[in-house]
Amino acid sequence: MPPHSELPEKTSCYRHFVSYGETDTMGVLYYAEYLHIFERARSFFIREHGMSYAEVEERGIILPVREARCRYRAPVGFDDEIQVLVGISQWKRASMIFSYEVWNTDKSVLHATGMTEHAAVNPEGRPVRVPDWLKELF
Amino acid sequence: MPPHSELPEKTSCYRHFVSYGETDTMGVLYYAEYLHIFERARSFFIREHGMSYAEVEERGIILPVREARCRYRAPVGFDDEIQVLVGISQWKRASMIFSYEVWNTDKSVLHATGMTEHAAVNPEGRPVRVPDWLKELF
Amino acid sequence: MPPHSELPEKTSCYRHFVSYGETDTMGVLYYAEYLHIFERARSFFIREHGMSYAEVEERGIILPVREARCRYRAPVGFDDEIQVLVGISQWKRASMIFSYEVWNTDKSVLHATGMTEHAAVNPEGRPVRVPDWLKELF
Amino acid sequence: MPPHSELPEKTSCYRHFVSYGETDTMGVLYYAEYLHIFERARSFFIREHGMSYAEVEERGIILPVREARCRYRAPVGFDDEIQVLVGISQWKRASMIFSYEVWNTDKSVLHATGMTEHAAVNPEGRPVRVPDWLKELF
Repeated sequence: MPPHSELPEKTSCYRHFVSYGETDTMGVLYYAEYLHIFERARSFFIREHGMSYAEVEERGIILPVREARCRYRAPVGFDDEIQVLVGISQWKRASMIFSYEVWNTDKSVLHATGMTEHAAVNPEGRPVRVPDWLKELF
Repeated sequence: MPPHSELPEKTSCYRHFVSYGETDTMGVLYYAEYLHIFERARSFFIREHGMSYAEVEERGIILPVREARCRYRAPVGFDDEIQVLVGISQWKRASMIFSYEVWNTDKSVLHATGMTEHAAVNPEGRPVRVPDWLKELF
Repeated sequence: MPPHSELPEKTSCYRHFVSYGETDTMGVLYYAEYLHIFERARSFFIREHGMSYAEVEERGIILPVREARCRYRAPVGFDDEIQVLVGISQWKRASMIFSYEVWNTDKSVLHATGMTEHAAVNPEGRPVRVPDWLKELF
Repeated sequence: MPPHSELPEKTSCYRHFVSYGETDTMGVLYYAEYLHIFERARSFFIREHGMSYAEVEERGIILPVREARCRYRAPVGFDDEIQVLVGISQWKRASMIFSYEVWNTDKSVLHATGMTEHAAVNPEGRPVRVPDWLKELF
């Protein structure tokens, strides 16, 4: 996963302060917390496009994570502010891929890159085609 | 909250290793994680009495937390093993109180004491009288 | 803990969106997550007063939590926005108490109230008198 | 990542009950929590080989995560018991790869597969060759 190539042109930029509870004994953001922050960035991205993920679910589309990856490049400390660039890098027939880059505030340090793949399923849990309104939203 | 007096006679003893992800920059168990561990201890207590909390909910009784308290006495480090004594210290008409003591393995250090108060509600969220089968279970 | 009386006059207002990862099977903010959010609100309060908690620690004062309490009044759902009012409600010789109120955005619902007591200790972990610069800061 | 091929012959089997706090609004284990459980499984594996990760760090070797991946195959519900098979699937000069499989108790359902890559670094954070005593331990 090269640092830059995955991100699409249209991204949102979610800003986040690292809390004490997100750090570990090494004094840095714990590796599982990146996935929590990816989720926050994803919800922020959806909100910036005029909907909320809660509304997406109310319309009958659930987007469970099928795969998640994170490449850790440089640690983030307590109280550091980070910005997460997030966008949809790929649409498949029944799934979509979000890509993420975690930067410091002046974009001089790339802390991490990552992706999450989401299936589109109905409330009964069956895979469905990604609806057009969702694609058009983004 | 004196260290000993709150715990009832009938307790369970839940054992737990502190993980890296549960610690913070100070190298100790983060304060919010005690409530997670109290929940694990509670479920363990219920399981030791022959039921699971999932089954309690299936029988139509939900036990949402109304209040939680924790008194932090001595920090717990990464990979330390702790034992949590847990029991029901009080029954009210429509609620119950669990009490907790967090000890090291040889019970020479009392790390924390705590309590959680739980309402009994039905699946619609309305308070109900604590059912007899629940009291008898414990 | 009455809903209003604990909060001092000087408060900060920290805003927060509830993420998926903070919710539980009941579809609401998990009880331990309130303590994480209290910590975020605390750091926000300190930052609004021109310092960061990281700087407080660099100056040799650590503020470990001695006690935490939360009273849960009305659940908060996924993607709900909340505001946390936070302030210092009491100074003792070697400790201080933060109080919190968790409201919805239009302040029509009080979701929770809480407090955390913090000792002032030096980097060796010994209790110290709360320094004047800290009191003056707030 | 095929379900079986990544795991080495020598594995440990870590057992875990899913807590309420680990689930989300969908009533299943939240995707970031798998990485917490991988860490617990890893520590369990190290402990089964006669050391603890805390001791590894005391000997001057820190194993920060460089990359983490998880493939989610079938959700896990609240109070479900799972078993995590864990082993070291690859040694590189200055890093090592742990692989994981998350199964239900009778091994009829494979819930997830995953990997974490760890650099070997000294306390100053510089990459070092994986020491022989660590290889021999496992």
